[in-house]
Parts: sequence; structure tokens; C-alpha cells
Amino acid sequence: MHDQFQTILSGIQPVDNSLSASIQDHLDDLTKPRGSLGRLEEIAMRYAIATGTARPVLEKKKIVCFAADHGVADEGVSAFPCEVTPQMVYNMLNGGAAINVLARHAGAVLDIVDIGVDHDFPDHPGLQRCKVRKGSSNMAKGPAMTIDETLQAVVTGMTLAGKAREDGFHLLATGEMGIANTTSATALFAALLDLPVESITGRGTGIDQERLEHKIEVIKRAIEINRDSLKTPLEVLAALGGFEIAGICGLILGAASVGLPVVVDGFISSAGAVVAMQLSCRVSDYLFFSHLSNEEGHKAVMQKLGARPILDLDMRLGEGTGAALAMQVIEGSIKLYNSMATFSSANVSEKQ
Amino acid sequence: MHDQFQTILSGIQPVDNSLSASIQDHLDDLTKPRGSLGRLEEIAMRYAIATGTARPVLEKKKIVCFAADHGVADEGVSAFPCEVTPQMVYNMLNGGAAINVLARHAGAVLDIVDIGVDHDFPDHPGLQRCKVRKGSSNMAKGPAMTIDETLQAVVTGMTLAGKAREDGFHLLATGEMGIANTTSATALFAALLDLPVESITGRGTGIDQERLEHKIEVIKRAIEINRDSLKTPLEVLAALGGFEIAGICGLILGAASVGLPVVVDGFISSAGAVVAMQLSCRVSDYLFFSHLSNEEGHKAVMQKLGARPILDLDMRLGEGTGAALAMQVIEGSIKLYNSMATFSSANVSEKQ
Repeated sequence: MHDQFQTILSGIQPVDNSLSASIQDHLDDLTKPRGSLGRLEEIAMRYAIATGTARPVLEKKKIVCFAADHGVADEGVSAFPCEVTPQMVYNMLNGGAAINVLARHAGAVLDIVDIGVDHDFPDHPGLQRCKVRKGSSNMAKGPAMTIDETLQAVVTGMTLAGKAREDGFHLLATGEMGIANTTSATALFAALLDLPVESITGRGTGIDQERLEHKIEVIKRAIEINRDSLKTPLEVLAALGGFEIAGICGLILGAASVGLPVVVDGFISSAGAVVAMQLSCRVSDYLFFSHLSNEEGHKAVMQKLGARPILDLDMRLGEGTGAALAMQVIEGSIKLYNSMATFSSANVSEKQ
Repeated sequence: MHDQFQTILSGIQPVDNSLSASIQDHLDDLTKPRGSLGRLEEIAMRYAIATGTARPVLEKKKIVCFAADHGVADEGVSAFPCEVTPQMVYNMLNGGAAINVLARHAGAVLDIVDIGVDHDFPDHPGLQRCKVRKGSSNMAKGPAMTIDETLQAVVTGMTLAGKAREDGFHLLATGEMGIANTTSATALFAALLDLPVESITGRGTGIDQERLEHKIEVIKRAIEINRDSLKTPLEVLAALGGFEIAGICGLILGAASVGLPVVVDGFISSAGAVVAMQLSCRVSDYLFFSHLSNEEGHKAVMQKLGARPILDLDMRLGEGTGAALAMQVIEGSIKLYNSMATFSSANVSEKQ
């Protein structure tokens, strides 16, 4: 498992920025004032460089939604009971969750991955069965996962990315479902980015002030009790993460290793991205941060990363919903890049 | 012409806000934490109220792009020569402009309307021939349009909205093409919203500092010379507007009068919207401001209107490009509203 992880990690290549001149020339030749498509031009540039070509293709899109339970839910940090994790997985399998609607809207395939739900699911064509364990351990009492389990979850994500590449997908997106996972994500941000727990802990699915204070205390306790095993990004992920966050981290690393760009959903997906970015400094060039989550703390995280998310719609649902919407913007950018007429071809006069 | 204008104007009904309770109940019954879809929930609410039903439909979408020339271009306020207006209309008719690409991406029909281009176009199935005059007069020397011409352009937009309603469209969007029209739009904002010309004048398609200062001076001169005929919104529109801005204003008024919501594109379209909002205080409930333009001054305009645009992508192209992207977000909101499972139907536990 560790060898497979290292092989993929070290297979991540830096992007070829020398392409940027020819990409910019093409952007400037399109029938519009230079730069007038704003971030759409930046997005086209980023996508083209990540995929290593000045003639990028974006047709097949896939959203991978990882589901897992969290032992720390025992501490009463969420507004919803644990049984909602498997219930929502069934809802997704039946096509009734928000991510089903938005994946269809974006024309993206949706994969649901049971990477650690505390429930035995029957076989279902829409479900990838990759369970590492039936939920992580309570991080407020010790490490949430062992290093081996963490590697297994990360390699699961890596393998799914490789498979997506083989299947001809051009763009991936992350998503997740897991009661109590804002608690885990917040702890990861605090430990990995040196951000104060108080200022980045939010209300998740909707807890009151009293429970918010309790959540802050639980996160601090989790960091304190795991203090000695927070030395490497992988150790931090094992101690404070969850299986779905490890899966997201792996999907990102695996995608980068095969030159596939990834759209990062919101708060929890960003935690997986931060771990991936700390494991490989080359990863960030393959990422699109889809939206600024309304979860307290996401803004500070984005600022710390120097990232400007594509959308800002006050969403805080996860599942991949923000990523699905951002995929449409990215696809629009690539269509503009590939389909607009040029000044010469359209006989339009250039700037005076 | 004036009678037709007044009939449609007075036909605009206030929206029925009493629907909001049942719409909110449905939103809260969908399988997600309350409010977690953020602005998508607000958008669904707004759309449902504007269309007067708690079971809204959004299938057929149309973008109406008005093209016209501006006499004030003679003052040298734009980076591009006037001939670009007809050239870009041809580009749109040939499917090569940015709005063609994004309209197709959004699944929207695109109508190109010659409402005042200084060019004789041959017949073309994609072109609506509604020319009022071959370009407006130079507003820096007197009124850009007569009141009769202005009414003709406004009624043209109203008529197109009514036709779109008859043709079964559910959502309209505005767009425009016209060299020098940021100059006209800026003058309208200054006169209608009492905003200082210096702080809201921007670089349009990309002028340098020297020409920007000249543009500010031209706008001030236009306001000064027309000072005595800036008493009503219609007079202001006639003096400082353009045919495409009048058409947009009419499209918005006509759409509101038949209960059709409208997505307002960027800087220039917002000028048409502001005139419409001052002609009828009931119009704003039918509008979605699609994006914050990168054109200097749009932020101040949005703040003055208390509007928060859906997207912020540094775009400053016009044509309807920002509106096309926002249409996809609005459509996503309505699909979520109509297609997500409810807590009871999906057997998902509610908040503790």
C-alpha cells in the first residue's frame, strides 16, 4: 500500500508553464477585447496548462462523492444523527439528493463511494464499495484512523482517479457525505495551516451557539490528545481526518499524477486538498477551488492558500454541489476558448 | 406608441409575496440542512414568486442581444472603431461570438436585434430587424435620441418580451453590442442614480488613462448640455441613452408585465434595468442581476440598487455573456427545487 502511494505521489509532474504564451496568444486572438472574459480566460489558461496542451478538450466529467462516518460524532458535534450518513447515501443512489440534481444539470457522471460508512449496503450499480472501516474512531480520544487505514483510503482515491483517466474522463470533481465531518475538516485546517480553532469553526449543518462552543472544545481536545502524532501531513490526516477526506486527498493526488484537473468542492473537500497540497507541492496547479463555502473558516483557508474560488453562493451543503456548478463555468471557459471566432477569421477590426 | 408604452407599463403587477411561506416550506422539506444551498434557495424563491407559483417551471430560455451604434463614438471614447458594431453582429449571426458559445452552453435561444446599427444588414434568420435609426446622435452635443425614437426602441423591447411569452419562454436575458455604449451607460448611471462621473467611469473595451480622462470629460459635457431635459427617466434615457439600452429597458418592462423573469447582463444592461426600475417600482422583483462587471462603477451601481449579483468573474464583455452563465445557476436552483427528494419521501432523519 505504501509503495503504491509513493509511486503515484512521485509520479506527479510539474505543469508545463511554457505553454502559457501560445495559450495567451489564442485567447487574445478571440473576438473580444483582451481580458474581457476575466476569470473565464484564467480558467481556460489553467485548464489548458494542467492538461498539457494548447488545444484542451473538456467533454467527459465525473464527480466522485465519498461517504464515511466519524467516531467524533459521539461527542455530539453535529445537528444531525449519524444514521443520516447511510440514509443520504441511499438518497444519492436513488437520485434524490442535491448532488444528483446538479450532476445531471452539469452533464457529469456521479460516483458514490462508500469508503467508511457505518452500514452494510447491498450491491448497487451506482455504489463503489471501498469501505476501509465502518467509520473512523473518535479523534477526541486518539487517532481517527491508523496510518495503514489512511493509506488504504488515499490509495482508493488514487485508484479511482486512474480508472477515471482510463475511462476517458477529462475533469474530476470531489464531493463528500459524512455526519460530523466539518469537525474533522476544521481540525485538519487548524493543524495543517496553523489557523486558530475558534476563528475557523462553524455551524456545519446548523448547530446552536452552545453546541458550537462544545465543537470548538472537542476540536481542541482532538488536536491536543493527538499532539505527538501530528508531524507529517499523512500523520495529521490519520489522526484528525476521516475516510472520505483521505479518499478526496487520494483522488486529487491520483488525478494530478495522470494530468487530470480536479474541481474541489467546499469546506471538507478543501481539507482533502490541503493534505494533498502538503504531500506534493506540484498538486495545486491541477486544482480549481469551486466555491467559497458559507461555513465559517473557509475564507481564512482560501486566503491562506492564496486561492480565489470561482463561485460565492453562500452554499454549505457539500456532496460536490458547489463543484458541479463550477464545472459548468469551467466547461463554458473551454468552449469559449475552442469555439469562438478569431479577429481575422471573422473580419472584425482590432483595437485602434 | 406612447399609448402602447403606457398600457404595458401600467400592466406590470406587483409580485405575490404571500407565496413565500409555501415556497419556504418546500425548500425546508428538501433533503439538506435548512438554508445550506444558500443563494440557490434565494434564487428559487425569487423565481417562483416572480412567476407567481410555488411549482415553477424553467425550460425554455432566451437571450435577447440588442445592437446599436452611438453618435458619441465620434468623441473618441472607445478603444475600438465604430465598424466593429456591425462586424460583431455578423460574427454573432455566424455563431462565432462569445455569446453564441455561452448561449449554446446554457441551452438558450439567442436573438440578435438590430435596433440601431449604422449599417444595412441583409435578411438573416437569426436577425430581428427593428432599426429605429442608424445610430444615436452624439450626446455630447445634444440629446442622443428623440422621445419618439426612445419610445419606439422601448416598445420594440416590450413587444419582443410579449412575443417570447407567447412562444412559451420561461426566462429571458438581456445582452448588447454597441461601440461606445459604456460611455452612454455611465452617463445614465450618473444622471439617474446621482453617482459621481469620475468614480464610475471605466476603461470599457480597454482605453488608456488619457482617453479615460477624456471619456469622463465627454460624459460630464453630455450631462451638462442635456441638463434641461433630464427631468424624467424617459427624458434621461432619450438624452443620454442608446437604442440598445432603450430596447433592454423595454424588454425588462414588457417581461415584467407578462410575469417573465429577466436576467440582467452586466454594466450596460444594468443601465437599461435602472431606467426600467425608475419607470416602474414593481420591476425589480422580476430581475436577476447576473454578475458583477469588472467595469469600474458597476459595484457602486449594484450597491446603490441593493443588488448582489449572482456571479463575480471579472467579466466586462457584455453581449449577454454573464447572463448566460447566470441562467445556468438559476436553472440549477429550479431543478433542485423541483427534483430533490424530501425528508419524508427519502426516509432521511431530520435535525435533532
